[in-house]
Amino acid sequence: MLDVGDEVISSLVKLAVAERIGEASLTGIGAVKDVVLGYLDLEKKQYLKREFGPDSMELVSLAGNLALLRGEPVAHCHAVLSDREMRAFGGHLFQAVTSVTVEIFLHVYEGEIKRRFDPDSGANPIVL
Amino acid sequence: MLDVGDEVISSLVKLAVAERIGEASLTGIGAVKDVVLGYLDLEKKQYLKREFGPDSMELVSLAGNLALLRGEPVAHCHAVLSDREMRAFGGHLFQAVTSVTVEIFLHVYEGEIKRRFDPDSGANPIVL
Amino acid sequence: MLDVGDEVISSLVKLAVAERIGEASLTGIGAVKDVVLGYLDLEKKQYLKREFGPDSMELVSLAGNLALLRGEPVAHCHAVLSDREMRAFGGHLFQAVTSVTVEIFLHVYEGEIKRRFDPDSGANPIVL
Repeated sequence: MLDVGDEVISSLVKLAVAERIGEASLTGIGAVKDVVLGYLDLEKKQYLKREFGPDSMELVSLAGNLALLRGEPVAHCHAVLSDREMRAFGGHLFQAVTSVTVEIFLHVYEGEIKRRFDPDSGANPIVL
Repeated sequence: MLDVGDEVISSLVKLAVAERIGEASLTGIGAVKDVVLGYLDLEKKQYLKREFGPDSMELVSLAGNLALLRGEPVAHCHAVLSDREMRAFGGHLFQAVTSVTVEIFLHVYEGEIKRRFDPDSGANPIVL
Repeated sequence: MLDVGDEVISSLVKLAVAERIGEASLTGIGAVKDVVLGYLDLEKKQYLKREFGPDSMELVSLAGNLALLRGEPVAHCHAVLSDREMRAFGGHLFQAVTSVTVEIFLHVYEGEIKRRFDPDSGANPIVL
């Protein structure tokens, strides 16, 4: 569980470092603000970003995983958010600050997932 | 699995009581109607609600958990729904009646999660 | 993990056949293209379909399960997608081709889930 003010992605990475997690899947819900979502533009090979203002939004779905990139833990999460009209927005989650609470369930596995930069897409896909 | 006519939140609570579940995470999909979604307004410290009519909607993501509030099981779920144009809506799930089927996977843990009312937000966050 | 060009539903079914999976739940994220989403119209007892073009979309939530229908593995998945404006769309997932990567976590159970065609809805709900 995250407290008000905790940023989701950095909190997950901090936890992965502290607990030496090399592989985990996660789902979560909550309410967040100051969100940055991304859409990977395959032609430009970079993420388009959209910032959502200081208003709290419902975090209606947080899904993702923890893995290692060059030996360092990384959190890859996608999120669905909704506003006060209950309209839904979604994308790659770059940032979200806990506004009320964020409740995450983590399934930690014994192995490791490794990621590597892929120049074809600009992303860091999993290497099996 | 829920049958046609079963309400999602009350069915989860009933199950938690019957099986004495103190902590669980859950994900699910299905099709529902008579849905009530909520958005927590932090200034008013109360949920704004939006009702979705009698038409069936796809339940494209159900995510949440079971915990205890003053010793009684409570289900905290967020949902993403979509209509016949495949537009997505989301929020805190207050109510959803199964219109076709709802398929939920529950991961039950041995411990207990306790919630407590928080006057600062008007919500019932987890107490660790 | 799926590679670029892999179709999600058929890849899941292929895996279920190869690994003799009779019951599993799954969650995933990624980026996909050539998506077909569905909405079950209860009056017509058939799915309305909407095709999303060749542009890549973020797969912000993939949720579902593997079960058996007349002895053959079937994947029942719902998906939430988002476009370059981060708008979210959702529905029953008929088809999605991996455009960058799709990362799925599967929880395989020892039992079997059986589905059977239901003429009342036109769907194949789980039989307990």
